Amino acid sequence: MNNFEFYCPTKVLFGKGMIARLPELIDRSQKVLMIYGGGSIKKNGVYDQVKKALEGYNLYEFGGIEPNPKYETCMKAVELIKREGIDFLLAVGGGSTLDGTKFIAAAAKYEGGDPYEGLIVRCEEAKDALPLADVITLPATGSEMNNGAVISRIATSEKLPFHSDLVFPRFSIIDPQVTFSLPVRQTINGIVDTFVHVMEQYCTYDVNTPLQDDWALGILRTLISEAPKVLAEPEDYETRANIFWCATCGLNYWISLGAVQDWATHMIGHELTAFYGIDHGQSLAIVLPRLLKNQKVSKSKKLAKLAREVFGVQETVDLKAADKAIENIEEFFNSIGMKTKLSDYEIDPMDAAEKVRERFAARNVAFGEKGAITADTAYEILKNC
Amino acid sequence: MNNFEFYCPTKVLFGKGMIARLPELIDRSQKVLMIYGGGSIKKNGVYDQVKKALEGYNLYEFGGIEPNPKYETCMKAVELIKREGIDFLLAVGGGSTLDGTKFIAAAAKYEGGDPYEGLIVRCEEAKDALPLADVITLPATGSEMNNGAVISRIATSEKLPFHSDLVFPRFSIIDPQVTFSLPVRQTINGIVDTFVHVMEQYCTYDVNTPLQDDWALGILRTLISEAPKVLAEPEDYETRANIFWCATCGLNYWISLGAVQDWATHMIGHELTAFYGIDHGQSLAIVLPRLLKNQKVSKSKKLAKLAREVFGVQETVDLKAADKAIENIEEFFNSIGMKTKLSDYEIDPMDAAEKVRERFAARNVAFGEKGAITADTAYEILKNC
Repeated sequence: MNNFEFYCPTKVLFGKGMIARLPELIDRSQKVLMIYGGGSIKKNGVYDQVKKALEGYNLYEFGGIEPNPKYETCMKAVELIKREGIDFLLAVGGGSTLDGTKFIAAAAKYEGGDPYEGLIVRCEEAKDALPLADVITLPATGSEMNNGAVISRIATSEKLPFHSDLVFPRFSIIDPQVTFSLPVRQTINGIVDTFVHVMEQYCTYDVNTPLQDDWALGILRTLISEAPKVLAEPEDYETRANIFWCATCGLNYWISLGAVQDWATHMIGHELTAFYGIDHGQSLAIVLPRLLKNQKVSKSKKLAKLAREVFGVQETVDLKAADKAIENIEEFFNSIGMKTKLSDYEIDPMDAAEKVRERFAARNVAFGEKGAITADTAYEILKNC
Repeated sequence: MNNFEFYCPTKVLFGKGMIARLPELIDRSQKVLMIYGGGSIKKNGVYDQVKKALEGYNLYEFGGIEPNPKYETCMKAVELIKREGIDFLLAVGGGSTLDGTKFIAAAAKYEGGDPYEGLIVRCEEAKDALPLADVITLPATGSEMNNGAVISRIATSEKLPFHSDLVFPRFSIIDPQVTFSLPVRQTINGIVDTFVHVMEQYCTYDVNTPLQDDWALGILRTLISEAPKVLAEPEDYETRANIFWCATCGLNYWISLGAVQDWATHMIGHELTAFYGIDHGQSLAIVLPRLLKNQKVSKSKKLAKLAREVFGVQETVDLKAADKAIENIEEFFNSIGMKTKLSDYEIDPMDAAEKVRERFAARNVAFGEKGAITADTAYEILKNC
């Protein structure tokens, strides 16, 4: 096991009726800015629940954070915050809204010029941030229990990560009931996103972390058993609760402490979203199987373990079991209605391969747990997608 | 899944050489009181490592916290704290030292008279506490990532729990190397303690928490695979690291969020320790198998799942599989050298049964997830131990 540090001061309130407890959690003296996305919270009743809970508060609103939150939009919220003297940010929505809010919290206090250049491109450590919290409505990104965000910039077609301990949510409210009305596509995207988060943290090389590995595979086992149930009965509370908790645990790092992480599937997937606008979950479902095939030898021990302990594969030769794992993963994605080929989204693999190679070459990247995913490797992977 | 709240702001630093990082974590302006136990840290080098790391600090010392930390001893530390104006407590030792330090932190700030009567007997919520942290040296109690402590009182032969969010360690340093020199008996006690912590949180009735259950069983699977290795090679870092991380995760509540908990084995075990002075781990190993047999019907679904997913039992009838689970657990304890009968410790089962019945009857208790463990049930269980 590698040395590790772990810290997550977020208070989680999980379950039915938790939104009504907002007044216990936010001081009444604060000027609160409620940040949300495209307005789905107005249709599913979450907006009304939050407004009711915060009656009597000095409450401001900022709507319109996009899926893949845009720097340009975030900066409009920063303007509002400075103009009105906002004290506390409450993200109400999915991972994109929360990611945007995390960046807004740090950007509002950033004093070194352009916050995108400073905090994201140059990766400067944030020195201050507004306090923030969330009512999370989408089981997918795990953003509700971590210190990370992914921000896109229209001007440069970029999608890049941002991290700071200052943007851990003070609290996260997770009421699985708010996901009853999720469109099927978002439900599926969330399941795939969670699945791939786990793969990025588990499927690397072995450094003797049996408990963390068992837990990672536990999330996969649970997703595989719960996914068909949620598609059959979208309003079953227990299934929605289990899927949401898998999503949160998929990226609060409990499964990967002391283990080696990958994240190359995400880095390639981000580029597909940036270039072609496909959903984050879709981009991951396309890249993962081909990346695993490309890196099969290096990842064979973990893939074989996954084949045996998640899919019950009996094969004793690791490399053969690894093949079975990759097949089973793609079959699982397809079985819940997630398409896994670029052509399914009317994207030409050669076009994608060339664009991403050019982008990665310009940045001189080497992603993955062994730095094996260079511009040329990404080209090879995408060609086969 | 039941509604739940989760909060744990402790920063964990896990791995080789972490003790040297103490100066990053404690402000130099603080008057620090280092609290330790019977002096084993002076033999294994931990005392020297901490002293070296904190060179130049205004450092005070308080040694002599016992296994099953005594209220009477803790109050001597409180006197010292008040006399010297201590700002920060650093527990260096096992769970008993840390548990004692947690109580000391709250008792030093308690203003309602006798802190034992107020914080423990009357269960008043602590209003203030000194900040505390730890260098934990024993994988067992999980105290390094939770807000609880168990305190004994000589005057009344009592051993009772104490909880407060104010006594979460600010940080916990876990360097598995410090456990290389642990006596075999303590290593075994720690493994059994962790095993039973998991059982208390897992082995109740099912409320549809598949991920939490899988994770609970993951700790048991890891303990069972690592335990023989640590007995064979006490200085193997990887095995020590895996066992320590199992212990921490056994009681940071990650495995039981939204699930139903039991803790009756602990409540009966505490009485055996209070009356006869046997080790905490020993008391649990004695009580658990007989308590499970007594509650077999009620716990059969979880016991059967455990039999199949931990011990590979093929039995399809739940009640029969449950029997196999109980047998396998006791065999596992015995296989690592832990004796599981009162007579092994020269304690008369009838004497224990009667004493505990009397104590529980006086308190009118009903422990366990369904309140089924009353004075009379405890009597029945202990009679068969």
